[in-house]
Amino acid sequence: MKVKRNWEALLLFKKVVIAGVGLIGGSLGLALTERRLAAEVVGVDPNRDNLNLAVTMGAVHRAASLVEALPAADLFILATPVGVTLGVLEMAVPFLTPGTIITDVGSVKGRLVERAEKMLPAGVHFIGGHPMAGLEVSGVAGARGDLFQGASYILTPTKNFDPVALQKLKRLVKEMGAHPVELAAEQHDRLVAMISHLPHLLAATLVNTVAAEPSSDMLLQLAAGGFRDTTRIAAANANMWRDILLTNRDMVLKAVRQFRRQLAEMELAINNFDQTALVAVLERAREVRMSLAENRTYLNER
Amino acid sequence: MKVKRNWEALLLFKKVVIAGVGLIGGSLGLALTERRLAAEVVGVDPNRDNLNLAVTMGAVHRAASLVEALPAADLFILATPVGVTLGVLEMAVPFLTPGTIITDVGSVKGRLVERAEKMLPAGVHFIGGHPMAGLEVSGVAGARGDLFQGASYILTPTKNFDPVALQKLKRLVKEMGAHPVELAAEQHDRLVAMISHLPHLLAATLVNTVAAEPSSDMLLQLAAGGFRDTTRIAAANANMWRDILLTNRDMVLKAVRQFRRQLAEMELAINNFDQTALVAVLERAREVRMSLAENRTYLNER
Repeated sequence: MKVKRNWEALLLFKKVVIAGVGLIGGSLGLALTERRLAAEVVGVDPNRDNLNLAVTMGAVHRAASLVEALPAADLFILATPVGVTLGVLEMAVPFLTPGTIITDVGSVKGRLVERAEKMLPAGVHFIGGHPMAGLEVSGVAGARGDLFQGASYILTPTKNFDPVALQKLKRLVKEMGAHPVELAAEQHDRLVAMISHLPHLLAATLVNTVAAEPSSDMLLQLAAGGFRDTTRIAAANANMWRDILLTNRDMVLKAVRQFRRQLAEMELAINNFDQTALVAVLERAREVRMSLAENRTYLNER
Repeated sequence: MKVKRNWEALLLFKKVVIAGVGLIGGSLGLALTERRLAAEVVGVDPNRDNLNLAVTMGAVHRAASLVEALPAADLFILATPVGVTLGVLEMAVPFLTPGTIITDVGSVKGRLVERAEKMLPAGVHFIGGHPMAGLEVSGVAGARGDLFQGASYILTPTKNFDPVALQKLKRLVKEMGAHPVELAAEQHDRLVAMISHLPHLLAATLVNTVAAEPSSDMLLQLAAGGFRDTTRIAAANANMWRDILLTNRDMVLKAVRQFRRQLAEMELAINNFDQTALVAVLERAREVRMSLAENRTYLNER
């Protein structure tokens, strides 16, 4: 979707700081700069090459350290890997000034939200976020300003939320073409365990099942579209997913148990040559899958 | 890929009969007619509307009954649903004339190959086939002449195979842009259980896991690309997959057991917060998935 050229820039924010300018952080930066939602976007990242590329791409206007960037920022986006977000926030605390809104983009909220609220000074408001969009590539090189177009964007305000902060974030989400959805942090973690973490885990497990066979070379050579589609997300970054699955451990294990329950039902029907039970299970899956709305734009690689 | 216009048609066959003019049968018909590999392609199908459409689309030159079509056919393709193939072949036997090559396209060979050999008259040669290509649509309306382009096409000659018949089939496969792979019928069934049947079963099970949750409406609304990709093949025809999974029951159950073994390893690592084990499992899956050759054309539906 082409971004409309507004002759009046809609400056939602004066200074946005993005910590972690990877695929998501970079895409947020591009969305902000392309749609002129912020006067200034500053990138912070330990990887100097990544940061330089982000500047070159226009995902951020300039690079800086947390110390330099944070004072007087009106939005601070933690787009760091799930495992380091809390640590980066802790490092940031001394440099935060009142009026800053903070959000993250992590696939798991865990204890982040409650701990963030405890450590932040007065006048600084944290509201967790999670755009339901992504690609199997990582790094800013794959970033796109339209990544969030048509995507659901979860926000996890607590009972202590600041209404102005929430409103501004919801506005930002909409201006990026996404659809804000408010959920409690724990509800978020339970949901994403089902629709994101479990699928990733299953895709990886399927690949490993095939890889463990003596005939794996032949299997992979013959594998067609069905196998590829089902295992596409197994190509995702292993470190990132280790952190996600362990941070959301309880919800993920629960989702796996639910899956195993359904798998047992499927296995039983096949084992018993139970045509009726089997076709019922398959038809239910088909109907539900067909009901997934097709009218959203999905940015799938390939 | 555009089909080259050969001014000399490469007539591999004089008369080809296709029983079951659905997605695969229709695509074979289109490949034969578009590439002028057969002088005459005759369609046989119990569904009169489907057959009329096939003629209109040019997937077959004309429609007929088995009785009318089979005498003097040099190729007879059984593109019937897996559960009825043997029955259709039995019905066909009285009308077959020597010199006919017979093949099928079924996702499971089961006992088809050995029974076919026993029931066929002298001079009629059966070699099982299975193009590793397809879409989630069914019916001739979705058929495409280039469906097999770049696909592996499995042939399952037995120790009694007729060399001329095999050569002609391999030639046909190549002329349709596919790559012939020879496997024993049982080896075929074991392999497809892993790379086709297991993925379908898992995709359906994942959908049902989400559908069984009280929050399923919200889950499905928030589900993004990863869930969609992993569950795409769950939209396939339930009756067809009931027949496939039951016909290949033993191999499918074995594949499920292997999968459960891998799943247990994944679960254990998460349960024990074992970072090292978990990242090893995820990295192995990533490497193997990345190694899947990207240079083939895949016709994925959307």
